Amino acid sequence: MAKKKNKKKLNIAVVGVTGVVGESMLECLLKRRFPVDELRVMASHRSAGKKIKWGNRNLTVIEASTDAFAGIDIALMAVESDQSKLFSPAAAKAGAVVIDNSSAFRMDPKCPLVVPEVNPEAIRRRPKGIIANPNCSTIIMNVPVWPLHQVNPIKRIVVSTYQAASGAGRPAMEELEEATRAWAKGKKFTPKVFPYHLAMNLFSHNSKIGKEGYNTEEMKMVLETRKIFKDSKIRVAATCVRVPTLRAHCESINLEFSKPMPEKEVVKILRKAPGVQILDDRDKNRSPQPLDATGQGDVFVGRIRQDISQPNKKGIEIFIAGDQILKGAALNAVQIAELVAAQ
Amino acid sequence: MAKKKNKKKLNIAVVGVTGVVGESMLECLLKRRFPVDELRVMASHRSAGKKIKWGNRNLTVIEASTDAFAGIDIALMAVESDQSKLFSPAAAKAGAVVIDNSSAFRMDPKCPLVVPEVNPEAIRRRPKGIIANPNCSTIIMNVPVWPLHQVNPIKRIVVSTYQAASGAGRPAMEELEEATRAWAKGKKFTPKVFPYHLAMNLFSHNSKIGKEGYNTEEMKMVLETRKIFKDSKIRVAATCVRVPTLRAHCESINLEFSKPMPEKEVVKILRKAPGVQILDDRDKNRSPQPLDATGQGDVFVGRIRQDISQPNKKGIEIFIAGDQILKGAALNAVQIAELVAAQ
Repeated sequence: MAKKKNKKKLNIAVVGVTGVVGESMLECLLKRRFPVDELRVMASHRSAGKKIKWGNRNLTVIEASTDAFAGIDIALMAVESDQSKLFSPAAAKAGAVVIDNSSAFRMDPKCPLVVPEVNPEAIRRRPKGIIANPNCSTIIMNVPVWPLHQVNPIKRIVVSTYQAASGAGRPAMEELEEATRAWAKGKKFTPKVFPYHLAMNLFSHNSKIGKEGYNTEEMKMVLETRKIFKDSKIRVAATCVRVPTLRAHCESINLEFSKPMPEKEVVKILRKAPGVQILDDRDKNRSPQPLDATGQGDVFVGRIRQDISQPNKKGIEIFIAGDQILKGAALNAVQIAELVAAQ
Repeated sequence: MAKKKNKKKLNIAVVGVTGVVGESMLECLLKRRFPVDELRVMASHRSAGKKIKWGNRNLTVIEASTDAFAGIDIALMAVESDQSKLFSPAAAKAGAVVIDNSSAFRMDPKCPLVVPEVNPEAIRRRPKGIIANPNCSTIIMNVPVWPLHQVNPIKRIVVSTYQAASGAGRPAMEELEEATRAWAKGKKFTPKVFPYHLAMNLFSHNSKIGKEGYNTEEMKMVLETRKIFKDSKIRVAATCVRVPTLRAHCESINLEFSKPMPEKEVVKILRKAPGVQILDDRDKNRSPQPLDATGQGDVFVGRIRQDISQPNKKGIEIFIAGDQILKGAALNAVQIAELVAAQ
């Protein structure tokens, strides 16, 4: 085997390192042997001084601030939108390429919105120095849908999600765990992070509902998919639902293609698709479940079938599962960082 | 107020009375003041001799057998298909009108399939003396969809379900409870009733998948809806999913109408629809949840919105919740019994 070329090591900042996505970004950098020179870990004032072990290195969390990015090559942002609006432009100004997991810059025409399996080339044009990481449900849907769309343009997607608590961060995961333990003991529990009970229950996604009746999460799936696919005509109707699972999202996806799309063709395409694992055993009734996807980087696809409600074989239905923290956030961001590093 | 006419009291049999649906049938008969003369309660050999309190009466469970139906006016069947195939014709032969909750006779052209809010008139033609109670997911979907279909024929339905454990009976509910308690204690749990873990997980409905890739539950939603609506052309694409909730099903429903169907018109129709309660507060992001529907007879409807992916306002999306044991099974059967009693 040819000896690997030594990659140039880069100075990396991770902001929001105590959150579940920030923590996972660090794990992804380590696991994927990202060529890290300095690793600067930042969080809020509260967490400053905290020690973090990263491989053999001992890191100390510093307080995130707009002047903390000198010398950084790539800044990974795992903070809320309002904070990202503050720190991302500052990091970019200091010369870093910013990869932002918040929704702050996703629809900014000057910021590419990237799923590495879909539009890696989009990273090149980044006049603001900021690359946006898409919404988790959008990424997980786009990974298997894109290779189909390339072969046979999709006209319309009807999607219903089964979203895990992790999408609302670590406190939400902890609340679901606490609520479940309270349920098991027959104790009363009052949710504080989520607006409604999640243990033994489910509810429409807890994001603001707009004038048209869709919540923000649903509109992200519509608008971000159009931007990532560079297809302003693709129509998406999304219903986003929070279910009592911890960290992997599922989606029931109904696809309408321009031309007939036989089920076998879909299987053939998805078998070769990057980031996709088919899990679809009809005899055993085995298809993707949240526990399959938990801790995995790929999106699992199953229940692949011709939509019997569509004439002319123009419809396909699939059911997918993907780790919300990994492919839905941290891993996708680190994959973008790898694209940037390879430039 | 005019004095109520004394209703003729009827002899009622409930078969499968120790199951969760049989038990709920007894509760519905009591709560709705069904005019019961004799109440004969049957179950398997194992439960024979068991005592049941029903209002002021003390009932003794007898073993179900084909010759146990003499003198019965209405027999409510809450048993599996194979047992119903044995007992239902026997009860009908003995002169009873049978209302069967199993799938045994649902697609039999000689047996009406009835949702009282949809096709009450269908009970009249019952040459076999057997009326079938539809599948739970089908009933819950049909209640709000039918009044819309009457005003503006629906061409196509895309539905994804969020189904509770109760659909698989009491042992399944108990298994979810036990699994959840095991999870809370950090104990390993091996499911026996369900094929896969349900606590903190979800999976595609545990019914046999046919040649076309749809499972039996999904095909019930397609075929039963056509029979109940007397519309062989209505197209349905269903994805049925089991989620970790106890006894109320939710459904994300996308409707395609023949003509434009403004959202306001849908709200107007559903406000007057029997068996429907609208729960749809956009400002508070409040829409139907399993815990809302638990123990309730009505189907809750929310997230009523114009489908932005459909041109010409021909699409509507809704999200519903209904108690699987009540409207999805026992209550619907007792409502049918009321129609029979009124004849």
